[in-house]
Amino acid sequence: VGGVRVGVVGATGYSGVVATRLLAAHPSFELAFCTSDQRAGASVGRALGVPVPAGLTYAPNADAVSLAEGVDAVILATSAAVSSRLAPAIFCGEGLAGRVVVDLSGAFRLSTSADYTQWYALEHPRPDLLAHAHYGLPELFGPPVRARGEATLIANPGCYATAALLALAPLLRDGLVEARGLVVDAKSGVTGAGRQSKEEYSFAEIADDVRAYKLLAHQHTPEIARFLARAAGSSSSSSSSSSVGLTFTPHLLPVKRGILATCYARPRGGADAAALEACLARAYAGSAFVDVVPPAEVTLAGVVGTNRARVGVTANDDVVIVLASIDNLLKGASGQAVQNLNLAFGLDEGAGLLSLARSSG
Amino acid sequence: VGGVRVGVVGATGYSGVVATRLLAAHPSFELAFCTSDQRAGASVGRALGVPVPAGLTYAPNADAVSLAEGVDAVILATSAAVSSRLAPAIFCGEGLAGRVVVDLSGAFRLSTSADYTQWYALEHPRPDLLAHAHYGLPELFGPPVRARGEATLIANPGCYATAALLALAPLLRDGLVEARGLVVDAKSGVTGAGRQSKEEYSFAEIADDVRAYKLLAHQHTPEIARFLARAAGSSSSSSSSSSVGLTFTPHLLPVKRGILATCYARPRGGADAAALEACLARAYAGSAFVDVVPPAEVTLAGVVGTNRARVGVTANDDVVIVLASIDNLLKGASGQAVQNLNLAFGLDEGAGLLSLARSSG
Amino acid sequence: VGGVRVGVVGATGYSGVVATRLLAAHPSFELAFCTSDQRAGASVGRALGVPVPAGLTYAPNADAVSLAEGVDAVILATSAAVSSRLAPAIFCGEGLAGRVVVDLSGAFRLSTSADYTQWYALEHPRPDLLAHAHYGLPELFGPPVRARGEATLIANPGCYATAALLALAPLLRDGLVEARGLVVDAKSGVTGAGRQSKEEYSFAEIADDVRAYKLLAHQHTPEIARFLARAAGSSSSSSSSSSVGLTFTPHLLPVKRGILATCYARPRGGADAAALEACLARAYAGSAFVDVVPPAEVTLAGVVGTNRARVGVTANDDVVIVLASIDNLLKGASGQAVQNLNLAFGLDEGAGLLSLARSSG
Amino acid sequence: VGGVRVGVVGATGYSGVVATRLLAAHPSFELAFCTSDQRAGASVGRALGVPVPAGLTYAPNADAVSLAEGVDAVILATSAAVSSRLAPAIFCGEGLAGRVVVDLSGAFRLSTSADYTQWYALEHPRPDLLAHAHYGLPELFGPPVRARGEATLIANPGCYATAALLALAPLLRDGLVEARGLVVDAKSGVTGAGRQSKEEYSFAEIADDVRAYKLLAHQHTPEIARFLARAAGSSSSSSSSSSVGLTFTPHLLPVKRGILATCYARPRGGADAAALEACLARAYAGSAFVDVVPPAEVTLAGVVGTNRARVGVTANDDVVIVLASIDNLLKGASGQAVQNLNLAFGLDEGAGLLSLARSSG
Repeated sequence: VGGVRVGVVGATGYSGVVATRLLAAHPSFELAFCTSDQRAGASVGRALGVPVPAGLTYAPNADAVSLAEGVDAVILATSAAVSSRLAPAIFCGEGLAGRVVVDLSGAFRLSTSADYTQWYALEHPRPDLLAHAHYGLPELFGPPVRARGEATLIANPGCYATAALLALAPLLRDGLVEARGLVVDAKSGVTGAGRQSKEEYSFAEIADDVRAYKLLAHQHTPEIARFLARAAGSSSSSSSSSSVGLTFTPHLLPVKRGILATCYARPRGGADAAALEACLARAYAGSAFVDVVPPAEVTLAGVVGTNRARVGVTANDDVVIVLASIDNLLKGASGQAVQNLNLAFGLDEGAGLLSLARSSG
Repeated sequence: VGGVRVGVVGATGYSGVVATRLLAAHPSFELAFCTSDQRAGASVGRALGVPVPAGLTYAPNADAVSLAEGVDAVILATSAAVSSRLAPAIFCGEGLAGRVVVDLSGAFRLSTSADYTQWYALEHPRPDLLAHAHYGLPELFGPPVRARGEATLIANPGCYATAALLALAPLLRDGLVEARGLVVDAKSGVTGAGRQSKEEYSFAEIADDVRAYKLLAHQHTPEIARFLARAAGSSSSSSSSSSVGLTFTPHLLPVKRGILATCYARPRGGADAAALEACLARAYAGSAFVDVVPPAEVTLAGVVGTNRARVGVTANDDVVIVLASIDNLLKGASGQAVQNLNLAFGLDEGAGLLSLARSSG
Repeated sequence: VGGVRVGVVGATGYSGVVATRLLAAHPSFELAFCTSDQRAGASVGRALGVPVPAGLTYAPNADAVSLAEGVDAVILATSAAVSSRLAPAIFCGEGLAGRVVVDLSGAFRLSTSADYTQWYALEHPRPDLLAHAHYGLPELFGPPVRARGEATLIANPGCYATAALLALAPLLRDGLVEARGLVVDAKSGVTGAGRQSKEEYSFAEIADDVRAYKLLAHQHTPEIARFLARAAGSSSSSSSSSSVGLTFTPHLLPVKRGILATCYARPRGGADAAALEACLARAYAGSAFVDVVPPAEVTLAGVVGTNRARVGVTANDDVVIVLASIDNLLKGASGQAVQNLNLAFGLDEGAGLLSLARSSG
Repeated sequence: VGGVRVGVVGATGYSGVVATRLLAAHPSFELAFCTSDQRAGASVGRALGVPVPAGLTYAPNADAVSLAEGVDAVILATSAAVSSRLAPAIFCGEGLAGRVVVDLSGAFRLSTSADYTQWYALEHPRPDLLAHAHYGLPELFGPPVRARGEATLIANPGCYATAALLALAPLLRDGLVEARGLVVDAKSGVTGAGRQSKEEYSFAEIADDVRAYKLLAHQHTPEIARFLARAAGSSSSSSSSSSVGLTFTPHLLPVKRGILATCYARPRGGADAAALEACLARAYAGSAFVDVVPPAEVTLAGVVGTNRARVGVTANDDVVIVLASIDNLLKGASGQAVQNLNLAFGLDEGAGLLSLARSSG
C-alpha cells in the first residue's frame, strides 16, 4: 500500500525472473504486472515459488504499454529489437508522463544510429531518443534523475560493460592508465546468453568447455569504449570513441552465473600498485555495492547471488592488471535495474538488495 | 530493537554460515553473536558480505556458554560430539533458564545411549536428556513448545531424514504403505559433508563422479526409522525401531547443494496413485514450505536456495515411489532451524524464509 | 589390409561418434563407411580429430543399405524407428548374406509386437525378426554366433539394461535373491539422451539439478525384466515377464557420461554378503571387462572412458544392495557393440577396447 | 620384446598416471617401472585399470636411480625440488650413460641460478646442467637429439608455456608482432595444480568459481619469456629476457582438464589477420599435433583427452589476438613427454598418441 508500482516485461527470461523476484521481495516496490508470451495466463507465484500479490498472472507482452498506465515504472527484460520499439512507446506514450523505464537491453546505450547498424544489425527506430537515456551505472555516472512530470529512460548497462567499467573507469578518470591499448579479457557464465534451446548450449556441449566468442565483434565493445571515454573526459560523441583504444574478448564458461573481467592497461605517470588501489578505494569509498579487494579475491564465488561487485588491481612498471567480478543477472542486469529504481524514487540505494546472500558459502 | 536475540556456535561451517545469514536478514531476530575458532576476532560482516550488527566479530567457541547468557536462543552448528556436551551446558546452565537451543547435529535425535554407541561411535554424555529433545520437523511433528521459564532443546532433523520423512511419513501415518520393505535411495550434494580438506573431496575427484557411501551404515538410518515408526503410530522406544523395515542408501553427487530422496514402498489396502497423492496433499495443505507436485518436478533446481521441499508420488499395483527434494543447508539444516525458532517464539513460520529465491531461474 | 570392414550408420550422434572412433583405432577392423545426414560430405577425420582412412567422408543415411554391400558388418547408431526398418533391410537384403548388424537401438530387444506398441509407441514392421536377434550382453548370454552364409542380427543392450543386468542377473540365476520386489534406482549422465537442442537440456537447466524421469514408464523396463527373467530361468515368452517383479527409476545427473545403478532385492535362502559377492566373483571370473569391487568403489569415475563395468554387493537379513557402474556410451552402447563384433569375428574380446583409459585419474 | 624400456618416477600424481597409461598402451615402449611412495607395493594394473606388464607394482621413489639402470628412459613426474636433484643423479650417474631423462617439472627450463631463487624459491643444486637441457617443444624448437653414449636431459615444457608459446612464438619469429606489450591471459583446469587436499581445492569451493591467481608472480612467466625471446631471435642469456615484454595471468577454472591461452600482441609491419593465419599455417604445416583453426574453435572440448593443440588468430589495426588450447596433462605434460621420447628414439612422433580421442564428442 502506497508503494511504488513496477511492472516487468519479458518476465520469464533469466533476467526477467530475477527482476520479478527482486520486486516481489522489495520493501518499497509493489510487483504490479508481469508479461510473458510463453507463460501468459499462468500464476506468477507458482512459477517463482516466492510470495507475490495474490492472483497475479502473466499478461501477454502485447499488453505492456497499456499495463504501463497503471504503474510508476517498467523494467524491460526484452531484446534490443523489442526494447527499441517498446521503450519509446512508454517513454513518449500519451497518458504515460512520469513513467520510469529501465531497459535491460542495449537499445539505448549507444549514441548513434550507425552504431546500432554496425554492432546490433538493428535499424534503430528512434535514434532521436538515444541522447535522452541515462546510462544507469550509478557508481560511475551518478543516479538517474527524474524530472517532475516527465518520463525517465534508463539504459541499464550490459553485464560485461558493468564489470569492465567498474574496473577501468576510475583509473582512466584519474589519469593513472593510458587510454590506448586497453584489453578486457572477460569470462562469463552461460545465463549471460539468455535461455537457449540450441544444441551448442546443451549441457553435454558446454560442460568442461571454455572458449572465446565474437572476437573483435561483440556488441558490448562500443558501449564499454563509449563510457570509458566519458570517464576519461573525452567529449567525443561517437560511441566507438576514438579517444580510447579497447580490445574486448568475451569467453563462455561452464558455470551458470558470474562474470570475471581481467583488464590490462599501461600505467601512466608512474602510477604504482598502491596508487592504483588508492584510486579504486576513493572511487568506491561510499559505495554500497563495490568492494575493493586484493586481486586474488576478485572471484565469481564472492559475488554470485548478490548485487555486489569486487574490484582489485596490481601493477608493475609495464602493465596494470585490474579485475572486476559481478553476478551477470544481478549487478550485471536486474539487480542494477532495481538499484537504479531505488535511486530514481529516492529510496535507499540498497533497498531490497543488500541482504542478498552469496550462492557460495 | 526488542527483537529476539540469537547466537550461532560454529558459525563458519557451511550450515553455520547459512544460519548466520538468515539471522542477519531476519525481520524479528537479532544476530547476537557468532563463534568460530577458525576465524576468531575477524569481522562477521566482512566474511559474509551482508549487513550485520556493527562491529560484530567471531568469538572463540569456548565462549559459547557464557555468550548464551545474553541471548534468547542459540543455534549449534557443531558436530554431534561437541553438541552432546554443549547443548546440555546451555540447556541446564545456571542462569540460562528459558534459553532455546537448536542443535543441528544428530546428538539429540536418537532415543538411547546404545544408538549413539552404534551409529555415532559416541558415548553420549547425557542420555537422560534425549527424551527432552523436541524433534523439529514441524510439518510432521508440530511446533516446538516453550514452557515458561524452562529451557527448550530442539533436535533439528538431519538433511537426509528431513527429505525421507517428508516423503514417507504421511503415507505410513495413513496406512497407505507397508511399514516393512521401505527403501530410501538418496542423492546429496557435497556440502552435506561439511567443509572438507581431504583429497577425496577435491574438485578433480568429485566432478563427474557419483557413488553410494556408508551402505547400510549411515547414521541417519536410525533417525529415519525412529520417526517413520512414530508416524506409523508405533510406541516402540528404540530408535532402530523394529516396527519399520528401512534400507537407506546415500549417494554423493557432483553438485554443491540439494538432496533428492527416491523412496520405494509397497502399497497397502489397494492404495493407488490418486489416493497417495491426496494423502500428501492433505498432509501439506496448510504448509508454508512443502509443495506437492508431479514426481518429475521433484528436482534439486526447484528447491535449492529456498527453505521449500517438494514431494511427489506415483504407484502401480506393486510399488509406491515417493520422492522429496530439499536444499540440505536450508530445509535440511539452517532454514529449518530458523523455522523452528520462528515457531518457538510465536512468529510467522515463514518469517525471514519465504522470500528466499531459488538459485536456479 | 585384410581386416574386417565395418560401417557406421548415424555416425554423428554421441554413440555414433564413439563407435566411429573405436573402429578407427581398432587393430583388426577397418572403418569402411560412415553415414550422417547432418554432416554428409564432410571429412570424417577432420570431424573426429583421429586418423581415419584417407578421404573418408560422411555419406547420406539413405545410402546405408547399398554401402552395406561392401562391408562385413554395420553398426546402427540410429533410433528404434529407423533401426526397425534398416536392420531388416540389411539382415534380409539380397546380396547381403553374411552381414553382421549390430543395432544400438531398442528395436530388437523385446519379444512381441505388443511390447513395441506399449513401450516404444512403435508399430514394429518386422516382429517376425525379433526372435532372430541375439541379445548382445556376452558376460551373461554368451557371444553372438555367426552361421556360415547367414546374416547375424545383434540387439545391443540398452545402457540402463546393461548396468542393471550385470548387477542382478547372476544373483537371480543362482537363486540368491527373490525375483519379486526388485528395485533398480539408476542415475545417468546426459549423453544417454543423445544430442539435444531443447531448453530443458541446456547447461543452465541441467547444471546443479538432479531429477527422476519417466517413472514406471521407461522403455528399458521390459528389456531389463525380460532378461532378468531369462537369467532366473523363466521360459516366459513375454518380455514384460510376470516371473520377475521390477521397478525401474531412471534419474538424470549433471554429468556427461556414466550410469550408476543401485539395485535392491530381497535375499533368498539365507544368502549373506559373502555368498552374494562370491556369486558375482564366479560370474565374472573370466571376464575381461567386469570388475567385482567393494560397493563404495562402484563409481562413475572408475569406469567412464572405458568399456569396463564395476559391480559390488552388500546385504543384511532384509535386503541385498547390488550396484553397477558403466560408461553409457562405451559398455552401455558402442564399446559393447565393438565387443560383440570382436566375438562375432573370432577376435579377442578386448581388441581395441582394453587399453581405453579412464577419463579420471 | 625389444622395445624401449621406460620408467616413471612419481607415478600416482595426475601427470604420472597419464604418463603410465600412455606407456602401457604404447606400441614401442615398455613400461619398465613405476615409483610412488604413496602406493608403494600396490599393483599398477589394478590402480590404472589398463593392461600393464604382469606383476608390476609401485616401487618406492628412493629406488628411482637404481631402477634407472635397467631402462632406456625415465620420466620424472616430480616437483622441481625433487627433479633438480634426481635428474642430475640419473643424467650424470655412473653406469647410466645414454639414459634419456624427461623432466616434467620446471627444474631445467630456466637458464640461471638466480631465476630459480626468484621464481621457484629454489637454490638450484646443479645450475651447471641448465645449459645441457633440451627444451622439449618439438614444433618450435626441434626434436631432442641423443648423442651416442651420452645421456640426454629433456626439460618438458610447462603446461601454460606450451599453450602460450604455440600461440605466440611463430608470430614473433616472423616479426609479425611486437615483442613488447605481450599479454597472455590463460585459463586452466584444476588438475594443473596436481593432487590437492586443501579445502580451497574442494569441490564446494571450486565449482562455479573462477579466479586469477599468482598475478605477476607465476613461475611459468620467465619460461614463456625466455622461449619467446628465443623465437624472436634474441641471444639474451637471461630467461627473464629483456627482449620481450610479457604479462602472464593464470586463472583457475571449474573444469578438470584443459588450458585456454588468450594472447594479445601489437601487430607489426602492417600484419593483418590473413598474414597472421598464414604464418601459423606455415609454422604447423607438417605438425602431427597442432591444428590451425578459426579462433572460435580454439576450445577445451576440441583438445581435452588428446595430445593435440589448437591455435587460431584474428586481428585489427591495433591488436592481434592469438589463442591456443591444449590438454594440460597431455600436450601440456605427459603426452608431450611421450612425443619427446618418440622423437628421441627415432620413432614416429605420433606413436601411441595420435589415436587418443577427445573426451567430448
